[in-house]
Amino acid sequence: MKVLVLNSGSSSIKFKFFDDKVVKASGLIEKIGEETSKVVLKNTLSDEKFERDVAIKDHEHGLQVLNELFKESGILEDLKVLDGCGHRIVHGGKTLTKHCLIDDQVLSEIDRVSVFAPLHNPAHLAGIKTMIKAAPNVPNVAVFDTAFHQTMPDYAYMYALPYEFYDKDGIRRYGFHGTSHAYVSSKAANLLEKNSVNIISAHLGNGASVCAVENGKSVDTSMGFTPLEGLVMGTRCGDMDPAIIPFISKARGLSIDEIDNLMNKKSGVYGICGYNDFRDIESRVEKGEDKARLAFDMFCYRLVKYIGAYLAVLPGTDGIIFTGGIGENSSLVRQKVCEKLTHLGIELDLNLNSQRMSTERIVSTANSKIKVCIIPTDEEFEIARVTEELVNKG
Amino acid sequence: MKVLVLNSGSSSIKFKFFDDKVVKASGLIEKIGEETSKVVLKNTLSDEKFERDVAIKDHEHGLQVLNELFKESGILEDLKVLDGCGHRIVHGGKTLTKHCLIDDQVLSEIDRVSVFAPLHNPAHLAGIKTMIKAAPNVPNVAVFDTAFHQTMPDYAYMYALPYEFYDKDGIRRYGFHGTSHAYVSSKAANLLEKNSVNIISAHLGNGASVCAVENGKSVDTSMGFTPLEGLVMGTRCGDMDPAIIPFISKARGLSIDEIDNLMNKKSGVYGICGYNDFRDIESRVEKGEDKARLAFDMFCYRLVKYIGAYLAVLPGTDGIIFTGGIGENSSLVRQKVCEKLTHLGIELDLNLNSQRMSTERIVSTANSKIKVCIIPTDEEFEIARVTEELVNKG
Repeated sequence: MKVLVLNSGSSSIKFKFFDDKVVKASGLIEKIGEETSKVVLKNTLSDEKFERDVAIKDHEHGLQVLNELFKESGILEDLKVLDGCGHRIVHGGKTLTKHCLIDDQVLSEIDRVSVFAPLHNPAHLAGIKTMIKAAPNVPNVAVFDTAFHQTMPDYAYMYALPYEFYDKDGIRRYGFHGTSHAYVSSKAANLLEKNSVNIISAHLGNGASVCAVENGKSVDTSMGFTPLEGLVMGTRCGDMDPAIIPFISKARGLSIDEIDNLMNKKSGVYGICGYNDFRDIESRVEKGEDKARLAFDMFCYRLVKYIGAYLAVLPGTDGIIFTGGIGENSSLVRQKVCEKLTHLGIELDLNLNSQRMSTERIVSTANSKIKVCIIPTDEEFEIARVTEELVNKG
Repeated sequence: MKVLVLNSGSSSIKFKFFDDKVVKASGLIEKIGEETSKVVLKNTLSDEKFERDVAIKDHEHGLQVLNELFKESGILEDLKVLDGCGHRIVHGGKTLTKHCLIDDQVLSEIDRVSVFAPLHNPAHLAGIKTMIKAAPNVPNVAVFDTAFHQTMPDYAYMYALPYEFYDKDGIRRYGFHGTSHAYVSSKAANLLEKNSVNIISAHLGNGASVCAVENGKSVDTSMGFTPLEGLVMGTRCGDMDPAIIPFISKARGLSIDEIDNLMNKKSGVYGICGYNDFRDIESRVEKGEDKARLAFDMFCYRLVKYIGAYLAVLPGTDGIIFTGGIGENSSLVRQKVCEKLTHLGIELDLNLNSQRMSTERIVSTANSKIKVCIIPTDEEFEIARVTEELVNKG
């Protein structure tokens, strides 16, 4: 099956093209609406690149140019011959609880729940509508970041605010990174050679979240109503006393919007030490810079606490997964986190942990009661897989 | 030694009088500034009560009336013969890190950090100044709710906000209920017959917090910059995605102050089910009321997660303490929480757990790897003990 996966932002569209589950092309339409916009398509088998530096006025125009590059590369004769197109959608709200084929009702519902993801859902909608125009007969599938977490019990997803905030305003823990947590936890079942696994999955990138997976189902996760809650992230604060907001507002005369921006873009490890790339942070830790040390320790410590919390929540844990840019690449983060957990039966093999490989693997010792796995995430593959499945079901 | 312990609020003063560590009297000066104010002193040995129903115009007047009742009861001839007076102070800020004898500098520092506890510290100050006037030669001691938590490492007390918010504004995790956590964890060491214990202390009252105690020292706690963070409480929301505040503000057109009030006074189990007394909640759970069930489950679940987090943080845990009104009295809360933790080596003795007693005791089975203790808290006793110690040191 020929499946295109689109991740549409407000001024960019990332794409990957799968042919019978093999990536044939990937690339980016970037700076849509600007003079310096361009489209790049890479033949992932030959590494050959196809580019157009043209002013792209909107998403529709971008997809036209991409279609030309597809033809030129010989990878796909036209978007119209696709068997399906999978769209990454950040937020499904309370109603869009499962990945689904997109019809008019789904479109209007994605629009309605945009209130929860005002920066993302409208851009996703633009991407879907563009695709419908370019290839009206190709089925479109919505794959929600939030869907995997719909299996959380109410006592895990509710906040202790007045009940009507849930009832009327839809305020609850939704969780994000669902496609990634779903993908790596199903990979972990294979890796651990078990049909049904209890897993703690740590997706550590610039955004970061942890998920408790019981028998393949999400039962809790660290991101909440928005992707701000939970772990210390690149520029996001994660958990904090909510009463800090009224205090800052008064102490510094900041508006709610300014504080919102600050919590999302000026905080996290960046807020502490001025860097949000973990390679920078780790090299500065080595040089003895104390704020880098603090940022690094806070990042690891918060993660240790979440792993502990989920070890309690799960009725027994088979493995811990590290994934995402930091999770896959920082042996030091994995080492510091696992060191704190040795007394709970987690024993990292320092040699295996330090090897740089891009394959999924176990990096704990044979004796480790809970296995530690590194599993490279592949959200686009998962979106393509779900798209195939739903298109086949019809 | 004769020690008076005062907990001064804005319109009330609670007191307890200790003579050589034995409570001889306790009571309340209430509704200061109102027409219906009164002073009640109870002889705790005979249960005899002494009352004055008079309009009390201020804290100073209240203490004069109390002095008269002390004389009348024959328990204390005059406040001037006290060996010391211990004052409960909610917030010590960044500077007042240890309990201390009060001098002019301490007074002005308590005043300065009032910005962190605007409802409490000014009232405490009024109480101290009144006492100084009534008995100028009696040493006064400040006992801070925050002091016990000063041993937290930086990666535990820092929030991932821009560093200058800590540096310039003093925004960090302070933690509260320190006097209670200190008292019950030292009692637990005796009960478990160990010199040095690692303990998770759960103080569950209308306000509620958990504390990880390593070798007798607080290393983390669930309350943060204010007593709002952490567990689900009677009317406080505890942990939530901070991004909910900007969302609510827009969705409902609420001001920051209104949201602050709502998070502190309309949330928690009360916000979910309309009740904040656990006896009401439990009886409604029995009747099958679903919102009561939800509130109860959320309360227990959040606690389970904190216990899990601290089991990970501590390098091995000897015991879990339940204290505070709910912790001491709700066998159902203890049962539900411990049930979720059986797979981590915690085994409650259901029979011991269900017995109503007012003494400290172990309620886990002999096989339980981690012991479960009920230890009635006594913050006034701890304040009196600290007061004696500091007065004796001079």
